[in-house]
Amino acid sequence: MNRKILLKSRPNGMPDANNFEITEATAPDPKDGELRIKALYISVDPYMRGRMSDAKSYAPPFEVGKPIQGGIVARVLESRADNFKAGDVVLGRIDWQEIQTVPASAVTKIEEGKAPLSYHLGILGMPGLTAYFGLLKIGNPKPVETVVVSGAAGAVGTVVCQIAKIKGCRVVGIAGSDEKLAYLKNELGVDDVINYRTTKDIKKAIEETCPNGVDIYYDNVGGEISDAVISHLNKYARVVICGQISLYNATDMPTGPRLQPLLLKRSVLMQGFIVSDYADHVTEASQQLNQWVSEGKLKYEETIVEGFENLPETFLGLFEGKNTGKYLVKIAE
Amino acid sequence: MNRKILLKSRPNGMPDANNFEITEATAPDPKDGELRIKALYISVDPYMRGRMSDAKSYAPPFEVGKPIQGGIVARVLESRADNFKAGDVVLGRIDWQEIQTVPASAVTKIEEGKAPLSYHLGILGMPGLTAYFGLLKIGNPKPVETVVVSGAAGAVGTVVCQIAKIKGCRVVGIAGSDEKLAYLKNELGVDDVINYRTTKDIKKAIEETCPNGVDIYYDNVGGEISDAVISHLNKYARVVICGQISLYNATDMPTGPRLQPLLLKRSVLMQGFIVSDYADHVTEASQQLNQWVSEGKLKYEETIVEGFENLPETFLGLFEGKNTGKYLVKIAE
Repeated sequence: MNRKILLKSRPNGMPDANNFEITEATAPDPKDGELRIKALYISVDPYMRGRMSDAKSYAPPFEVGKPIQGGIVARVLESRADNFKAGDVVLGRIDWQEIQTVPASAVTKIEEGKAPLSYHLGILGMPGLTAYFGLLKIGNPKPVETVVVSGAAGAVGTVVCQIAKIKGCRVVGIAGSDEKLAYLKNELGVDDVINYRTTKDIKKAIEETCPNGVDIYYDNVGGEISDAVISHLNKYARVVICGQISLYNATDMPTGPRLQPLLLKRSVLMQGFIVSDYADHVTEASQQLNQWVSEGKLKYEETIVEGFENLPETFLGLFEGKNTGKYLVKIAE
Repeated sequence: MNRKILLKSRPNGMPDANNFEITEATAPDPKDGELRIKALYISVDPYMRGRMSDAKSYAPPFEVGKPIQGGIVARVLESRADNFKAGDVVLGRIDWQEIQTVPASAVTKIEEGKAPLSYHLGILGMPGLTAYFGLLKIGNPKPVETVVVSGAAGAVGTVVCQIAKIKGCRVVGIAGSDEKLAYLKNELGVDDVINYRTTKDIKKAIEETCPNGVDIYYDNVGGEISDAVISHLNKYARVVICGQISLYNATDMPTGPRLQPLLLKRSVLMQGFIVSDYADHVTEASQQLNQWVSEGKLKYEETIVEGFENLPETFLGLFEGKNTGKYLVKIAE
């Protein structure tokens, strides 16, 4: 049986399993320029929450009754397109469907054998590029500067922490479990860590772990954690707004301290971005990330769930911080 | 009689006349390397409110019992310093005092005859440079972009509006009286205006005056006006945080909507700054401002109060928006 997963209804606040529906799917014979492909790995990413709502954002909303779409690594079963043949591995942002027929233009070929295929959904894909661009193009880290990373144990955060170490920075990671913190310190070489779930006074924790203040804040999370970090920013600090996962499920307009007076007093730069803003730099970034991975300078962790039917639950787990590193679902070999 | 004005006490919230004290002053005979100078014009600027508090900011706090300091144009009465002679005109950020003795290093000489001397406290001085750097170095305006300026009729805002017009932008100015709005439209060529005191729905007013959204927001004011403008920012918009006058007298931490989700969705840059961040570019900026002024491309308005004793009241008037253009006090010919 071939299956797909639809957006059944739009969530109001935190999404749950009822917002998704698994149904039977078909994959018609490919026409000229099309491929029939079989999903191997499907990515779950926090930004997808935005597409479940119909609010204006950088990606168009999913349509109710239509498949969820996301990053997928797939194998070509049958090709009627130039430059693709059966057996090739491809990457695309396409439907959550086990076997599907797509225009060849919806995917790009990826090289098999150099790195695990799943890496193309993580460190060698969108999350890795996001980490690279946000930290290097906006954060512009200099040696001995202090970099604080929220969501430090996630798909993007783990890469940010390591690139910041490569650049000679002091790195403080914020995450939500002691296992994650141990991973950050012991495996990734992060200098200091904060457990936001058990630390009573985050501001004090920032003060203690950042005795020289904060020069770069790479923010995946938002909310009160960000308030605490921002209150310790140094003159000329940079705030990289990559994600705001703590606010994605808010039903009212979230409020908090007004930041502009502090940004003014300390000449702070705050910049939101998405990976496609730096499309012109993808080649440079991919080469560098590949090199660091092959040299062992960038370690990479994945939390892999098996089974297509587990996609909704895995996606929902992002908002509980169930993953260390990249969270994804393995569909087939 | 020679007089000076001291910070008598720190304000809690809005400052008033009781925070200032006028006392008799002396100006001892200058020693080697010193000048005796007589104030001609003294500037009042919103940033000075910050120095009345003892909170950490970009300029050190005034000391209680010591003179207020600010921008002053003065004439040299007596010089014991190389490169200065009696009759020279100088500019410095020095004590609010009619006649004083200062190290020559505390002031710079300014050229007499090219522009009115008071311009060096405004369009050819700190406010003009602030407008120039914030708009051009951070805002980076491109033709036909929409620029919204809060505090548009103030010393900085009037210059920002005009430079934005020189750069081919659509300019919308926000100010607090119909006289100011008429000045902006009729004298400065601003495309559209909003009276924040009488407009009931600022968000709607922004929507109506900015049909193509907002590309650059030059913010002198902060608070709810900024909330309204920011909600209409376009993709890749730039927010120049120059001032936050609506919040300078707040006694509690001001709160408002959390901005990061919107900055993220629309890839917005928000940057705080002060003029000294661009010290390396002062020569370029001064030449350009002088040229625009001499060509008549930059018009300039001043609200001039006479009498040293009126300095505190004039300063307090900034927070009521009493000025159009630069607000300053004339002390002597």
